[in-house]
Amino acid sequence: MTTAERLGFGPQDRLLIVNADDFGLCHAVNQGIQSLLSDGIVSSATLMTPCGWAREAALWSARHRHLDVGVHLTFTSEWDAVKWGPVFRGGSTQSLVTDEGYFHKDAKSFERFADPAEVRLELVAQIEMALALGVELTHADNHMGSLYGIQTGRHFIEEVFEVCEEYGLPFRLPRNLLLEDGQVAPPELASQAGRMAQLADEKGVVVLDYLLGLPFRGAPGETYESFKAQMIALLRNLHPGVSEVIIHPSLVTDELMAFHGEPLRRGMEMELFRDPDIRRTIAEEGILPVRWRDLRELQRAKG
Amino acid sequence: MTTAERLGFGPQDRLLIVNADDFGLCHAVNQGIQSLLSDGIVSSATLMTPCGWAREAALWSARHRHLDVGVHLTFTSEWDAVKWGPVFRGGSTQSLVTDEGYFHKDAKSFERFADPAEVRLELVAQIEMALALGVELTHADNHMGSLYGIQTGRHFIEEVFEVCEEYGLPFRLPRNLLLEDGQVAPPELASQAGRMAQLADEKGVVVLDYLLGLPFRGAPGETYESFKAQMIALLRNLHPGVSEVIIHPSLVTDELMAFHGEPLRRGMEMELFRDPDIRRTIAEEGILPVRWRDLRELQRAKG
Repeated sequence: MTTAERLGFGPQDRLLIVNADDFGLCHAVNQGIQSLLSDGIVSSATLMTPCGWAREAALWSARHRHLDVGVHLTFTSEWDAVKWGPVFRGGSTQSLVTDEGYFHKDAKSFERFADPAEVRLELVAQIEMALALGVELTHADNHMGSLYGIQTGRHFIEEVFEVCEEYGLPFRLPRNLLLEDGQVAPPELASQAGRMAQLADEKGVVVLDYLLGLPFRGAPGETYESFKAQMIALLRNLHPGVSEVIIHPSLVTDELMAFHGEPLRRGMEMELFRDPDIRRTIAEEGILPVRWRDLRELQRAKG
Repeated sequence: MTTAERLGFGPQDRLLIVNADDFGLCHAVNQGIQSLLSDGIVSSATLMTPCGWAREAALWSARHRHLDVGVHLTFTSEWDAVKWGPVFRGGSTQSLVTDEGYFHKDAKSFERFADPAEVRLELVAQIEMALALGVELTHADNHMGSLYGIQTGRHFIEEVFEVCEEYGLPFRLPRNLLLEDGQVAPPELASQAGRMAQLADEKGVVVLDYLLGLPFRGAPGETYESFKAQMIALLRNLHPGVSEVIIHPSLVTDELMAFHGEPLRRGMEMELFRDPDIRRTIAEEGILPVRWRDLRELQRAKG
């Protein structure tokens, strides 16, 4: 049974969430995401509580509770000029950081060194920080996929589900992994994803049917038109069930340019779902909007 | 004996350090301070390691080791949109943070709640972070004067001097507090400062003779010309010995405007020491430049 069916939709219905990741990363990202949320262009955003501008994003979210904002559980710090680290203050987080004191740069180093007990404490601390700032969290997901064990197989999904169960938050895990383009998790993880989805069901944590996104980095020769064509293809190929599409929109400012590896691509993702061609595709395909808030209600009603 | 005399200068010589505080706070501040350091307009800058852009400032400092960069020991987080917290990862820092998980907003709350053992661990962690990033630290000072006990009398100077002794770093403490304008520490602390200076001597930590600065916030009707006149008056009234003047320069950008309470004043402080009138005043008064590096060598030679 798909998550869509559990929400009361039919077996052929295709439902879509568009999530803006990295809310709080910097001021340019905050400005971009706030405008997309306000205009109803994206369904939701997820907040990186360890980042320097998280409080701006959180206080804005606390004043706009009709919009969906979740927590972007963060265990990696991938840029060179802008950095962040753990927010748990109650004890050691040394297994989560480099010699410099920041989170590891990539998921692989995190997976290798992280102590599951420290991961669990940091998961809770990131959620508690968002709640303390007044955010009414609708869901949780994970920055750079560090918690899934994508790089080494060493994952932290038990810890995530325990915490999501405790806080009544649905989580970004795709029940189904396909071989098609646009799948965010690598297909080798298909069997592991099946076990993870079963564990989510046991814990009563609501998850997605599919998870989609465009490559984070631009291909040579890419233009806005080719980029849009990729997204249109993803939407036309949507499967029945609840799909989440991940984007990383931002205003393109001096601030973003000064640290981000793909600032112009972030600007393209700012335009994508405002584009009439994308909006027309969604309408033509009969794709239905759904919100993380709906998945959260499903989860909490069962509890 | 003044610190100037200990450096080999005469009893009437007036020596000046101009320090740019808050290096690492944001990209606009980094750009501003880097240009002032490069052009020799300020003598030194001090790095706020807990801030999001600290790594940019630190990596730049590591590539410019002929310039003086110290550590701006930070225990307060005063803005609303941009926030930071402890960098110690080895254990609890809970006495240093609010319920949100950030440093307290003001020195008073910090003085009230901070556990001296946690302060000491965080002092070391901030220094170690700078060293891990390759900065050859020349000195230490303190953001918002939180460690001096200015608000409640509860200070952390013993912890600071122990750590400064351990790392061979001179520290921003004025041996003399006066009743004149431009004194950064309040005159009620004069007797306490005397005891602190004595303790510094016992520990072999080199300190300043005088500490000066302009008010952090602008007065009504203030112009660049009136602001500059205040600084010229400070310089003309300089006493014999080593004086440090604190400034907080920054480029004025959208990023700075989005969180800072006094962005235009930060822009004025960007211009001040480039201004021919200020430079002429320094020359006319026969004020001699001195560097934190010289004070550090004095301290290390004694050790």
